[in-house]
Amino acid sequence: MKNFMEPESVALIGISRKTGPGSFNIMENMIKFGFSGKIFPINPKAKEILGKKAYPNVKAVKEKIDLAIISTPREHTVNILKDCVAANVKAAILVNQGFADADSRGKEIQQEIKEIAKRDGIRILGPNTLGVLNNFNNFTTSFMPITKERAPVGLICQSGILFVGALRFSGNIGKGIDLGNACDIGFYEALSYLGEDPDIKIIAIHMEGLSEGKEFISLASRLVKEKPIIIHKTGSSETGARAAISHTGSMAGNYQVCKAALKQAGVIFLEEDGQMTYAVKTLLNLPTMKGNGVAVITFSGAAGIMVIDALERYGLKLSTLSPETIHIIAELSPDWMPIGNPLDIWPAVMKFGTGNAYSIALKAVLDDPNVDGVICIAIAPMIPEFSFLNVSDALNKVVEEQPNKPVIAWLYGPNPGEISKRFESKKRIMTYPTLEIAAWSLSLLKQVPKV
Amino acid sequence: MKNFMEPESVALIGISRKTGPGSFNIMENMIKFGFSGKIFPINPKAKEILGKKAYPNVKAVKEKIDLAIISTPREHTVNILKDCVAANVKAAILVNQGFADADSRGKEIQQEIKEIAKRDGIRILGPNTLGVLNNFNNFTTSFMPITKERAPVGLICQSGILFVGALRFSGNIGKGIDLGNACDIGFYEALSYLGEDPDIKIIAIHMEGLSEGKEFISLASRLVKEKPIIIHKTGSSETGARAAISHTGSMAGNYQVCKAALKQAGVIFLEEDGQMTYAVKTLLNLPTMKGNGVAVITFSGAAGIMVIDALERYGLKLSTLSPETIHIIAELSPDWMPIGNPLDIWPAVMKFGTGNAYSIALKAVLDDPNVDGVICIAIAPMIPEFSFLNVSDALNKVVEEQPNKPVIAWLYGPNPGEISKRFESKKRIMTYPTLEIAAWSLSLLKQVPKV
Repeated sequence: MKNFMEPESVALIGISRKTGPGSFNIMENMIKFGFSGKIFPINPKAKEILGKKAYPNVKAVKEKIDLAIISTPREHTVNILKDCVAANVKAAILVNQGFADADSRGKEIQQEIKEIAKRDGIRILGPNTLGVLNNFNNFTTSFMPITKERAPVGLICQSGILFVGALRFSGNIGKGIDLGNACDIGFYEALSYLGEDPDIKIIAIHMEGLSEGKEFISLASRLVKEKPIIIHKTGSSETGARAAISHTGSMAGNYQVCKAALKQAGVIFLEEDGQMTYAVKTLLNLPTMKGNGVAVITFSGAAGIMVIDALERYGLKLSTLSPETIHIIAELSPDWMPIGNPLDIWPAVMKFGTGNAYSIALKAVLDDPNVDGVICIAIAPMIPEFSFLNVSDALNKVVEEQPNKPVIAWLYGPNPGEISKRFESKKRIMTYPTLEIAAWSLSLLKQVPKV
Repeated sequence: MKNFMEPESVALIGISRKTGPGSFNIMENMIKFGFSGKIFPINPKAKEILGKKAYPNVKAVKEKIDLAIISTPREHTVNILKDCVAANVKAAILVNQGFADADSRGKEIQQEIKEIAKRDGIRILGPNTLGVLNNFNNFTTSFMPITKERAPVGLICQSGILFVGALRFSGNIGKGIDLGNACDIGFYEALSYLGEDPDIKIIAIHMEGLSEGKEFISLASRLVKEKPIIIHKTGSSETGARAAISHTGSMAGNYQVCKAALKQAGVIFLEEDGQMTYAVKTLLNLPTMKGNGVAVITFSGAAGIMVIDALERYGLKLSTLSPETIHIIAELSPDWMPIGNPLDIWPAVMKFGTGNAYSIALKAVLDDPNVDGVICIAIAPMIPEFSFLNVSDALNKVVEEQPNKPVIAWLYGPNPGEISKRFESKKRIMTYPTLEIAAWSLSLLKQVPKV
């Protein structure tokens, strides 16, 4: 995988002379992204592309080429790969489409490609792939714009949408491998690479089909002891599974069998889009839960009830608070107030101020041996007009002193975007858009080792 | 309810002289909100509050008072209500806490209050309520800041969090009634009012307990023929149901029985927080589905598979596209491309440009008699750098000409906030953060009459 992820020299085969908006030019994107290695554009009709000498074919280059990226029409692929073998290229990414993702002719060509990979010592990623992304050395083969952040998150997927749409799926990724049709490089190789990569602390996977099932599962079950692995397996519906065959030629296999085996291996298994991003940020930033007891601190009894419903759905329960905790909160509250979990601290807030009351309550539950994790329900007011209602600084201070239990927050009010950022600024308290997602995310911390 | 929602004169009993940030002063908030009626502050220690003459008690006012708002400590409530009766006040909101939401003394006081309401002709909202919100005449009794928009959405709830946190729960609301402990005014009265209100096109309800069950359900089943009613009933878990008793004194009743009866009545029944806002915007803005056949247009085969999985979970299915539709898309696509539903139009985009290819595809599926609704999967690029990837204008133009089927979108990429706004600008295409929520939201349009 090193030739794919950290090449020193790249040949771009079938690269267009068109550049600028709408041209989807890989070379232009690669340069803009900051790749510092050598680039050899291959285009028999061009003398020069983007200021670099162009070559008629890869054999004409006469220098070491770590990686070839092929974006010609499909019918030229086999001959080009043969040229690559002749030029001693060790790795190729097939960006082009129309193989196992298409008609019977495409399937035949893919079979030929597969045999070249097996026989001639060249490793192949794709076809039908956006390729790779490595923000740690400013390298990407994507022709689409990509967000650049050195997040310790490695992504393996079967579609470029997971790169381009990373914010929707996994949050920012530091390294990404799009397997596409996975004719040669598959989940096993990609997982091996990211599993050993010290830059990567968590592995997110989008999977349509899994062909090397046994090896992958055995590797995953070993790796999860060190790094959480989260898999969104698509194709749970019969129609979805059929669509996977036409998308990447992936046989989805028996979904339920695959799900059971992956869960057994200790991976976090997801079935809905949108969950990955919460799973990643939770496991990346928060400590694990020692047990399943949760304290809820809230400004609102109604939201407390909603979160109880959600906790129960995900196998968590409300902690029975210790007498010490009850005593501390009772001191803050009116006499008529029944004190329990959820801790409704609105009456205390009215008397002692928002930040004060909330900090005392949070400190008390973090000290409580019956509590394994905390959900804070708080307000997201407009700033600076209603800054006195914002408890982000106060709570971050408490968590800094007691960092051993996960603390998460759910915010309501007119300004959730800005206040969420403030809550998350120290990466000690994570926020979620619903109580349902908050409870689910917290439940993941029961299952995994510390990142 | 008219005295509560559209009062011409209001007495504020137990109003504080403290104003400004952190004082939670109802009177200050009411004036700021633009209430144009008369306000009588009642405070025996003050001569004037916020420039208005203060009275020692409500009997001293000697003018017509439509609504009294009481925020004294609980022990004064009964005597104050007796004063209100003597002063011929017809409606009172009890903002104060410590009644059925608290200890046995609180329950006794609430019982006395209930008897006054029954016997003496004064209607009571609360206790333990933020009161009402009516953006159509700039009136609120909330002491917390509230977003002001004349949305045709009416909210009935049992907690002020649903007002303050409206963006998280229901989206902006035009009118709101917080029943709190619901000792007198209950779900039935509130629903009757909003049901007949021409300003309100959709009714969102947060419900902890339902005491007048039969009447409410019979009213709801009549109203849903004209206005969708969406209910988030909390307390599905046993612990949650117990917490409801201590929050508003509400007996949650048998959750499953209540759920079955409400669904039978034709309301949309929700169990998770966060769903309401999507249900409301969907039903408010989109036409209903005639059948359950969905066309998916996508830039990404992988996302197509995800949405198929989700559609199946919510009882929808992929339409079998007509030969005409297939023909139109085949004309745009490479020869090797299998054309089906989902329609993967990325290859067509590469040849014909983003907006062009997408518009032709959307027009074709909207013309297709096998299609009842459409999900568009599209990119949310940075603007203006990658404007050529943004199809919001192109799709809105198509939908304007063919408005009879719902079209929804899911966007991926670095700029979902801004591009979503552009998609939704004409209120003809709604966007959703996940394919899961998109599919679920579309499925609601099978169940309801046109708003």
